[in-house]
Formats: sequence, structure tokens, C-alpha cells
Amino acid sequence: MQKEYFMKKAIQQAKLSLKTGDVPVGAVVVKDNKIIAYACNKKEKKQNCLAHAEIIAINKAIKKLKTKILPDCELYVTFEPCLMCVGAILSAKIKKVYFGAYDLRFSCANLLKENNFNFSTDVEGGILKEECGEMLTEFFKKIRKAEKLNAN
Amino acid sequence: MQKEYFMKKAIQQAKLSLKTGDVPVGAVVVKDNKIIAYACNKKEKKQNCLAHAEIIAINKAIKKLKTKILPDCELYVTFEPCLMCVGAILSAKIKKVYFGAYDLRFSCANLLKENNFNFSTDVEGGILKEECGEMLTEFFKKIRKAEKLNAN
Repeated sequence: MQKEYFMKKAIQQAKLSLKTGDVPVGAVVVKDNKIIAYACNKKEKKQNCLAHAEIIAINKAIKKLKTKILPDCELYVTFEPCLMCVGAILSAKIKKVYFGAYDLRFSCANLLKENNFNFSTDVEGGILKEECGEMLTEFFKKIRKAEKLNAN
Repeated sequence: MQKEYFMKKAIQQAKLSLKTGDVPVGAVVVKDNKIIAYACNKKEKKQNCLAHAEIIAINKAIKKLKTKILPDCELYVTFEPCLMCVGAILSAKIKKVYFGAYDLRFSCANLLKENNFNFSTDVEGGILKEECGEMLTEFFKKIRKAEKLNAN
């Protein structure tokens, strides 16, 4: 299915985050069934807390299309967007958001639909959620193991 | 007073937005009582819906300090931050936010204090709110007048 196809492309991006010790999250922006922007989380690589995959992907799409907003675009992201990215998605007036794994601690995706912020957008979670979530579980397992080794 | 001093610097920034037809919003980031980053809203200038004054100022401060987050910094902004900027402020773990005019339609500042998003921060609104608000009122009055002229 098409949704799974684009989420797989976002997963490929997420894996690139691992190369720089970044939490594996990836995103793609789709317009007319074509990917127009790819990005992965680069908080560690860029040493910048704002360098989330969604923000980088939205900025790339805006530059590529030379438009201020992205009303004809969809965003695929492997992990449920945080508060900042939800705000960015609403600012960009993105048509629909598909995400993979759910953020069980700070779930923000419902804010996309709430229509309290000048715009609301459709959202569907859980696309390839096992695959998206496993990358994160593995990543944090390794980090905890390394921390344990350092502590000993 | 110091709060008013820094807000005046943010107001000076806001006025720069007007040169490019941007909504006049300005921000400064302060560390140890010194301004380390200035920015104004550049959505029109950059043709990018994410180019809010707060985001640009936070990015500049991160680059200047070479730190991933800004826990020792305060942010002054002439208008109540939107959802995206609230999320960015929380991601950057900014110590305290001072804003000028209130956003009576989509007020988001209370989310800064709510501690639902991995971090919460202190916020104080209404600093030089008349001056901050008047710039916005004047700006939108001019836009409506121009639209009316174009319609006739």
C-alpha cells in the first residue's frame, strides 16, 4: 500500500540518524504522490535541539516548491510529532500527517485535529508502528547499556 | 526596568519586520543580562511559514553559544508565542519567557507552564503590551485599508 511505501522511505531516513548518534526518526514530504523532501533527526549532528526530522523536511519542501506553506502536501514521519512539530505542521497547513510509532509519554498528535490554532489537519497514526518503534527501542537499549558500562 | 529594556530591544527588531511587509514581531535572547541573539519575523521575506522571530532567535543563540539547548537563557518576544514557538522554547529548555501583547485568539503561552511536555518554563506576559500591540494593530489596519482600495 502507498502509505506503507512512503513510511518505509521515512524509515530509511530514520536509519541515517543512527550514523550520528541521533534518535532514529525520519520524515518525508509527499506532493502528488511523489516525495519532494527527505530528512532525518539531526539534533546531535547539528547540536541543535530544533533540528527535528519534520522541521528539516518542511523547510526543504518549502525551499523546493518556493511556496510559503504546503497545503498540497502530506507528511510521513516515523514517530508521533512533538509539540513544536505539531505547531510547524499547522503553520505549514500540511494536508495530512501519517506517523508510525505512538509517543506514549507526550502524545501531541491530537492537537493537529483540534482546530484551536487557526488551522487543523487530518492525522493517522500507527503506520508500520512496530518497525518504527523497534528502531527507537533498540537505540535506547544500546544507550542504557553504554551508560551502565560507563557507570561500572 | 530591565524587563522593559529588553522588550524595547525586541520592539526595535519587530519594526525591522515592517520593511519586508512582515507582521511586526521581534525577539531577543538574553543570557547573563546580555542580549546574545536578535531576530524579527521573516515569514514574508524568506517566504517560509516557519521563519518566526522566536525560531530565528533561538537558532542564532544556539549557534552563538555552541550549545544544543539554552537553559541559561531568557527569551523576550513582542507577541505571545504560537504553538510551534512554544514547542521550540520547551525543546530549548529556555529558563523564562517574557512576552508583550497577548494573542487573544490562539493563546498558547500557558502551555509553557503546564509540564505536559517533558519540560515546563516560567512565562510572564504583558510587558509593554500597549506598544507591542499597537504595532500589530497599525499593521493590520494598513493591510485592510489596502485590501479595501484594491477591491474598489
